[in-house]
Amino acid sequence: MIAEILSVGTELLMGQIVNTDARYLAARLSEAGITLHRQSTVGDNPVRLAEAIETALSRADIVITTGGLGPTADDITKEMSAQSLGLPMRRSEEAENMVRGWFEKHGHAMTDNNLRQADFPEGSRILRNDFGTAPGCIMEKDGKAIINLPGPPREIIPMFDACVMPYLTERGGCLIRSRYLRIFGMGESTVESLTGDLMREGENPTLAPYCSLGEVQLRLTVRCQSPEEAPPLLDPLEKEIRRRVGDVIYAVTDDPGYTMERAVAEALLAAGKTVATAESCTGGMIASRLVSVPGISDAFLEGYVTYANAAKERVLGVDPRTLARFGAVSEETALAMAEGLRRRSGADICLSVTGIAGPEGGTKEKPVGLVWLGLCTGKGAEARRLSLFGDRDRIRTLASLHGLHWILCAAREQGTGERQGDPHPSPPA
Amino acid sequence: MIAEILSVGTELLMGQIVNTDARYLAARLSEAGITLHRQSTVGDNPVRLAEAIETALSRADIVITTGGLGPTADDITKEMSAQSLGLPMRRSEEAENMVRGWFEKHGHAMTDNNLRQADFPEGSRILRNDFGTAPGCIMEKDGKAIINLPGPPREIIPMFDACVMPYLTERGGCLIRSRYLRIFGMGESTVESLTGDLMREGENPTLAPYCSLGEVQLRLTVRCQSPEEAPPLLDPLEKEIRRRVGDVIYAVTDDPGYTMERAVAEALLAAGKTVATAESCTGGMIASRLVSVPGISDAFLEGYVTYANAAKERVLGVDPRTLARFGAVSEETALAMAEGLRRRSGADICLSVTGIAGPEGGTKEKPVGLVWLGLCTGKGAEARRLSLFGDRDRIRTLASLHGLHWILCAAREQGTGERQGDPHPSPPA
Repeated sequence: MIAEILSVGTELLMGQIVNTDARYLAARLSEAGITLHRQSTVGDNPVRLAEAIETALSRADIVITTGGLGPTADDITKEMSAQSLGLPMRRSEEAENMVRGWFEKHGHAMTDNNLRQADFPEGSRILRNDFGTAPGCIMEKDGKAIINLPGPPREIIPMFDACVMPYLTERGGCLIRSRYLRIFGMGESTVESLTGDLMREGENPTLAPYCSLGEVQLRLTVRCQSPEEAPPLLDPLEKEIRRRVGDVIYAVTDDPGYTMERAVAEALLAAGKTVATAESCTGGMIASRLVSVPGISDAFLEGYVTYANAAKERVLGVDPRTLARFGAVSEETALAMAEGLRRRSGADICLSVTGIAGPEGGTKEKPVGLVWLGLCTGKGAEARRLSLFGDRDRIRTLASLHGLHWILCAAREQGTGERQGDPHPSPPA
Repeated sequence: MIAEILSVGTELLMGQIVNTDARYLAARLSEAGITLHRQSTVGDNPVRLAEAIETALSRADIVITTGGLGPTADDITKEMSAQSLGLPMRRSEEAENMVRGWFEKHGHAMTDNNLRQADFPEGSRILRNDFGTAPGCIMEKDGKAIINLPGPPREIIPMFDACVMPYLTERGGCLIRSRYLRIFGMGESTVESLTGDLMREGENPTLAPYCSLGEVQLRLTVRCQSPEEAPPLLDPLEKEIRRRVGDVIYAVTDDPGYTMERAVAEALLAAGKTVATAESCTGGMIASRLVSVPGISDAFLEGYVTYANAAKERVLGVDPRTLARFGAVSEETALAMAEGLRRRSGADICLSVTGIAGPEGGTKEKPVGLVWLGLCTGKGAEARRLSLFGDRDRIRTLASLHGLHWILCAAREQGTGERQGDPHPSPPA
């Protein structure tokens, strides 16, 4: 079954808002085993909207529209959808009660044009909107379906989950199941040169790379009739990928939004280990990413942002002579920060970061992008040198990723004795 | 002049990422006075991609593609674009030097498939990529143009600003000048209700709102023949907007990427004042946003992430009885954190944040979204209560914005006494 998403709204074409609806619908459709070949955005223009609906209808079994269900004159998605299927518009008593009920419940005065939101294509299924005035609808004809949904995310998401998802699964089609291998420490083109043939030749399952800053995610996707069929098809491909790329896979998950910080939090909590951070150039980014994970307070003791040298001395007890002799960005300072942090916090794993994020401050010996990480545990302290490039944000983000990954490896070593880089399967999202 | 955006990437159709590129391009095109009728997304499928390019080309003067310029087998946007214009692909020496230079500069090993990124349609203009390996290009034929840009936001935005915008304005034959009014403490709908007529009726200059989480940015754009013509056209509109919205405007800038943290840094440095932060639920986000501004080390002394209660006591000297009696999220604890921070750091402006970011930890008396801010200066300490809603990220981001804005107002008061921006913003709806 093939679907197409049609986003309606001049505000999208003006770049005033990001189209998060399309992303949400795309993700849910793939879960439902429905193929999405295209997504399009048009403005509130009758001619182009009608043309877009008809084009989409000619290519897909199901066309899902978002937006243009409001009360104003330029909200015409329902009318144009009905026209494309040759259905007349009728006032729906059911929808009228929904609209009136919404205004009564929220104590707002209803204007007459709000009743336009109760007009629907004849025979269409009305979709209740618990978070706004505009009901959605599903209209069918000759085996094709158009589903009109509202634009605001707080309205469309509950409506899709409550009304549309059941309709789609009932309509059938196979399931799609995806597994994601998250890779840190190997570039996209290297990963591709090692697994390119699997990407080109794979049919079921398929393999696709997705590159984000500092990370590569491999998506293994399988089509099947039941959830049970997925693992036997995915496992051999995962095994073959592991054989080729080695131990750069740090997590295996079915959640496309899985993050490095979540892996770190899960490893720390599983190992019952605590962590503390001392950040200079990253300025709290590592701590903030850790704290973004709910429940981290059991593992994250405290963090220090010691950007100025005075703070490195006063807060972490770094010897002024170390700073004077080797500089703030040096192996010695990174080690001293990590050791001072461990004295202060007593955490099992203490990470320090100091570097030159730029754009100023670089020299021939210490260019922008030079970053030193320090790690102090019960086994002592060690330091690592990074040579990063790019703008300030990129360098700080990559330095944070390297720091988080080092914490991850240390937590796994201290916890289960697994070697660094070994994957931890993740709980379902 | 009519443009169309074609986003290429199966990861978009799988719902793995949000299409922020399309929003950025749409916004910049509207600034340039170029009409955008449609945006479409297709996957890495040769047949559908070729068809999408040809359809777009039949409707628009300029087709801008994003994505599919990488080294991997499914990166085919350039090839399909060249095919649609009947241009042969050629290895570009200029591009090969760019790609090789990029790898040399960054000390990475280049794999053979990276050289695919040096193949371009004959006669196309190569667009340098300073933040990735894939150059972009502009190809023209019979008065139509296709512009191939990379997918990653870090690569496409600088490339568009440096290479594409000048090309478009040159093609359009006029200058575009924009001024941005940044607003904090007034919701989008209120701003629009106060200035909607100016948005609808303005022709030159035009007025458009951009809403990011917690902030509203008003863009005043004027088309003119020379830079000197812009201010006399923009000033009266800005004055009228100020008259209507009052003092919620915290910055006026010509940089669309201007941020709250930059305003804070500039205010602190201008006033010669220092700042320190103590963060619980925001977990270092405020410090990290401050450190993202180059040169902040003269003003930012130190930051503490005291997420656990033990850290609030040990690091900031919060009295355990205060935590026991009033709880970690309370006016008393926020004040004690700010006062302890001032004792530790001696900074002129000391900000503390403690709150319940969720999803767990809320109670009837203290629901998720309750956040207390504390500010301690030479004049003493005060606290503020925020009631935010949304998920963990949203609450932490909004709390950080409120904290940064309070620092901004304090710095401006301590500095020139100038008082731009409402020091008591209401949480954005």
